[in-house]
Amino acid sequence: MNIRLVGRMVSSILFVTEVFMIPSLILCCIDGDHDVAMAFLASMAVISLIAGVLFWFGRKREAHFSARDGFVTVALAWVCISLLGGLPFYFSSEIPSYVDAVFEIVSGFTTTGASVLPDVESLSRGVLYWRSFSHWLGGMGILVFTLAVVPANKNSGGTLYLMRAESPGPSVGKLTPRIRQTAMILYGLYILLTVLCVAFLLAGGMPLFDSVCTAFGTAGTGGFGIKNDSMGSYSPYLQNVCTVFMLLFGINFNVYYLLLIRKFAAAFKDEEVRLYLFFFAAATGLITWNIRPLMQSWGESLHHAAFQVSSIMTTTGFSTTNFDLWPSFSKAILLVLMVLGACAGSTGGGIKTVRMLLLLKELRYNVQRTLRPRTVRAIHVNGHVVDNEVIKGVNSYMAAYWILMFGSILLISLDEFPLESNLSAVFACFNNIGPGLGVVGPMSNYDCYSDFSKIVLTVDMLLGRLEIFPLLALFSRDTWSKKL
Amino acid sequence: MNIRLVGRMVSSILFVTEVFMIPSLILCCIDGDHDVAMAFLASMAVISLIAGVLFWFGRKREAHFSARDGFVTVALAWVCISLLGGLPFYFSSEIPSYVDAVFEIVSGFTTTGASVLPDVESLSRGVLYWRSFSHWLGGMGILVFTLAVVPANKNSGGTLYLMRAESPGPSVGKLTPRIRQTAMILYGLYILLTVLCVAFLLAGGMPLFDSVCTAFGTAGTGGFGIKNDSMGSYSPYLQNVCTVFMLLFGINFNVYYLLLIRKFAAAFKDEEVRLYLFFFAAATGLITWNIRPLMQSWGESLHHAAFQVSSIMTTTGFSTTNFDLWPSFSKAILLVLMVLGACAGSTGGGIKTVRMLLLLKELRYNVQRTLRPRTVRAIHVNGHVVDNEVIKGVNSYMAAYWILMFGSILLISLDEFPLESNLSAVFACFNNIGPGLGVVGPMSNYDCYSDFSKIVLTVDMLLGRLEIFPLLALFSRDTWSKKL
Repeated sequence: MNIRLVGRMVSSILFVTEVFMIPSLILCCIDGDHDVAMAFLASMAVISLIAGVLFWFGRKREAHFSARDGFVTVALAWVCISLLGGLPFYFSSEIPSYVDAVFEIVSGFTTTGASVLPDVESLSRGVLYWRSFSHWLGGMGILVFTLAVVPANKNSGGTLYLMRAESPGPSVGKLTPRIRQTAMILYGLYILLTVLCVAFLLAGGMPLFDSVCTAFGTAGTGGFGIKNDSMGSYSPYLQNVCTVFMLLFGINFNVYYLLLIRKFAAAFKDEEVRLYLFFFAAATGLITWNIRPLMQSWGESLHHAAFQVSSIMTTTGFSTTNFDLWPSFSKAILLVLMVLGACAGSTGGGIKTVRMLLLLKELRYNVQRTLRPRTVRAIHVNGHVVDNEVIKGVNSYMAAYWILMFGSILLISLDEFPLESNLSAVFACFNNIGPGLGVVGPMSNYDCYSDFSKIVLTVDMLLGRLEIFPLLALFSRDTWSKKL
Repeated sequence: MNIRLVGRMVSSILFVTEVFMIPSLILCCIDGDHDVAMAFLASMAVISLIAGVLFWFGRKREAHFSARDGFVTVALAWVCISLLGGLPFYFSSEIPSYVDAVFEIVSGFTTTGASVLPDVESLSRGVLYWRSFSHWLGGMGILVFTLAVVPANKNSGGTLYLMRAESPGPSVGKLTPRIRQTAMILYGLYILLTVLCVAFLLAGGMPLFDSVCTAFGTAGTGGFGIKNDSMGSYSPYLQNVCTVFMLLFGINFNVYYLLLIRKFAAAFKDEEVRLYLFFFAAATGLITWNIRPLMQSWGESLHHAAFQVSSIMTTTGFSTTNFDLWPSFSKAILLVLMVLGACAGSTGGGIKTVRMLLLLKELRYNVQRTLRPRTVRAIHVNGHVVDNEVIKGVNSYMAAYWILMFGSILLISLDEFPLESNLSAVFACFNNIGPGLGVVGPMSNYDCYSDFSKIVLTVDMLLGRLEIFPLLALFSRDTWSKKL
């Protein structure tokens, strides 16, 4: 493995992280929160030191950049920002426990939105901003950002592996032949949509700071709110804006690129997006009907159902109401949506709609094959043949997904909370959603779990965001062997 | 499709079913339960009529027997015995609702052991015998039995498809080149082990009728008891006999065949059995430690833990104590064991240990492949290369498994029971275990669910027993098209 090159990449990422702390620092100075400002400065000092050491270590330029290096870089970069990104919370004592601070920032970067804080309204604006911004950065990917802004070195071919390891979904569409350009287009679209979201929120009378933080949470499909009741106290208009934008950020960004280059037919025929919108419509319809008796009118029922489906399906995790009190049928639908998740290539989590699409197609194909063993047919998506390796990868992903998820449920069961809570806590963290059911419902938080369980759930959030394999690779003997 | 040949096969199976009702009829006559005897006679008349029509319909001998015919035969045979096998319960009014009667007999044939009856002790002995015997017949497979006793027609090559469709596991080991001989060896071993189990139970002072019924439940890893508290009131010795025999019936019968032909080395090196015993030991150890505070001594703790692990893991479903009151950690372990299940080629259900073994090996292989995309290695089990098609089949099975399971949870959630109950009800039925947690816990039954949910759960039991594909095939257009 090319450990020096990995070191240099991780060092760039840490520098980027540090630069993004500056707005929080300025906010603290404006508000006069000098203690918090000092906490940010101290964190930046620590990060600089580590980044500097890594940069010095990786100073010698080397040529080869393999798939293995890409995986290890992504995994190590995420572990580093997880361990260091929570320092401002810890140094400022706004989150006194280091385990809690790491949990909170990992929840931010992985766009989970699960919180250990019972009262977010008491936090300083600098900390609130950093917390929400982590969603925005983690959503599209910190490595993708780094690829977009850091000048590419000569062998930029290898950087495709980085993007592949960080971007959600079974396969990465290179929009343009050059990776750096692809990364810039993705971030351009991302910034554009985020600005639009802020504009719509401002138009509804939301203050600027609230709008920006809420837009970060929506864009990253993260779900950290700046109010204790999440989105509950905002007007229906503002809630509807979020419903629409959550849904938009859950769509594969390739589709927006197709719209941008005026390939409308291809964009509207995308099978994944169609399935995604079908799931949204079906779930919203069923829940609207199921929760009608709890609501004043059909309109209100539809409003809450659409918001909650959009929020859970895109794995954002905002809430307008305590859905833990909804009927079992609605709760079961939400649990299924937690697993389904958003489209690949979006900022959302879960197993991704395209994987479900592939599994359904494979299932149909296999029923036909058992009936007629000699049939050979290929699986098509959007008119293209899907490579056998992609299907294999999806199957392997699903196996790892269930094994790790059940393992986590076992581990956190040691805390003796009810099964429903444990199950939904692991589902909500692994799929990067945030709120679950029971003791981790939308009106509660993860503080009740022990430190051990919080560590398990933190690892689950990282596994979910990086789609398992980069992290598993860290534990493979092959990664650390000298041979390529 | 060769519909006439399918009809003749189904007709044979119905005749076999009918013959097996005779012992119940005799028991009713001995006990003087004339109403129940009449119910059995009436059921036999109905079955004879239908079997006769099918036999007449399939009288013309045709040659070709394809994979498709095998699947359809197995699926239709099981649907027929499901709809007709419960008639004695219904006609005798011991189970007044037809939906309940079908649920109960499907639970029997699929060796699930889930019951809708609050008070089994009030049933007549004829009905109790038929209920327990259905476990024994369903466990090794009614088609396998038919293959063993009905003289083979000339093209016996095609009957491999029947065995493949009915036997649990991703691949069927032909013990001998001739299918009929394989079926006879399997049933021979099965009868031998059952007789041993009866002998050990008799030695512990259990009455003959109880011993036979309990042995049927153990051998089929079914779980219908003849007492309201399942195995709770029997002596620790009798419970331990069941612990051991449940574990034995959960082992792949090929291993017993290897022992029989004195291939000891191959038998003891079987990777699936080793993993199965490892899971048993690990789960028993953890639960023993976890439930120790609830018990009088370490010995009692071990006794209950071993029994319950053996019962859930082999998907039998007997209980000695109300494990619904155990700590969350133990309950979570039991839930994981429900999914794991027993070995392939045994009478147990679940996804089967060998599938888990293959998934784990595939996972490891895929981590290596992501690191080094050009590696090509094969997956080995017991020293043999596993065919790629088998791996594909396992993956496809897992996808179908989760999709159908979550779909069922959604459907039965309409009854508004807590999520834990719904989840464990579907897990317990789909994996052919029997008791779940909450409202379907070991001290309760499935009677509280609506008829609609009972039908969903009945279908789940059949899907679990036949391992999904034969039943799915019934709904495929390809099955019913004229072309081969």
